[in-house]
Amino acid sequence: MKARVFIRLKSEVLDPQGQAIESALKNLNENNIKNIRQGKLIEMDIEAKNVEEAKKSIENITVKLLANTVIEDYKIEIE
Amino acid sequence: MKARVFIRLKSEVLDPQGQAIESALKNLNENNIKNIRQGKLIEMDIEAKNVEEAKKSIENITVKLLANTVIEDYKIEIE
Repeated sequence: MKARVFIRLKSEVLDPQGQAIESALKNLNENNIKNIRQGKLIEMDIEAKNVEEAKKSIENITVKLLANTVIEDYKIEIE
Repeated sequence: MKARVFIRLKSEVLDPQGQAIESALKNLNENNIKNIRQGKLIEMDIEAKNVEEAKKSIENITVKLLANTVIEDYKIEIE
């Protein structure tokens, strides 16, 4: 199975990377784009009996390894 | 409108971040997860007359600023 984990900074956390992109856009004269936030996308292949089990496994590694749940939110997609 | 840009390393490009995650997983005894690739997820708000125009604007900034199209692929989603 293919799985994707989307990791975003929580909305109340400052995002300096997003701000850097936003100020670079001003130099490109793109003033119609705002509120830029940069997150991570982690893709993987997983062997599991079913989607439930795969999701549990990925949730486990996301909390332990991939995301910092104090400042980040995550979403798991399996297909 | 809300827009998302997914940026991934092309499949033929080595992904050291993905490899680092993979070797860390071995220490967590998760051996059922393989082929990990780390990419970027960039979210933004855009003001545009229609989806077409928004997509064109975002494609423009993605190629110029967000993605390195020599080694990265991108996908744009607007909602």
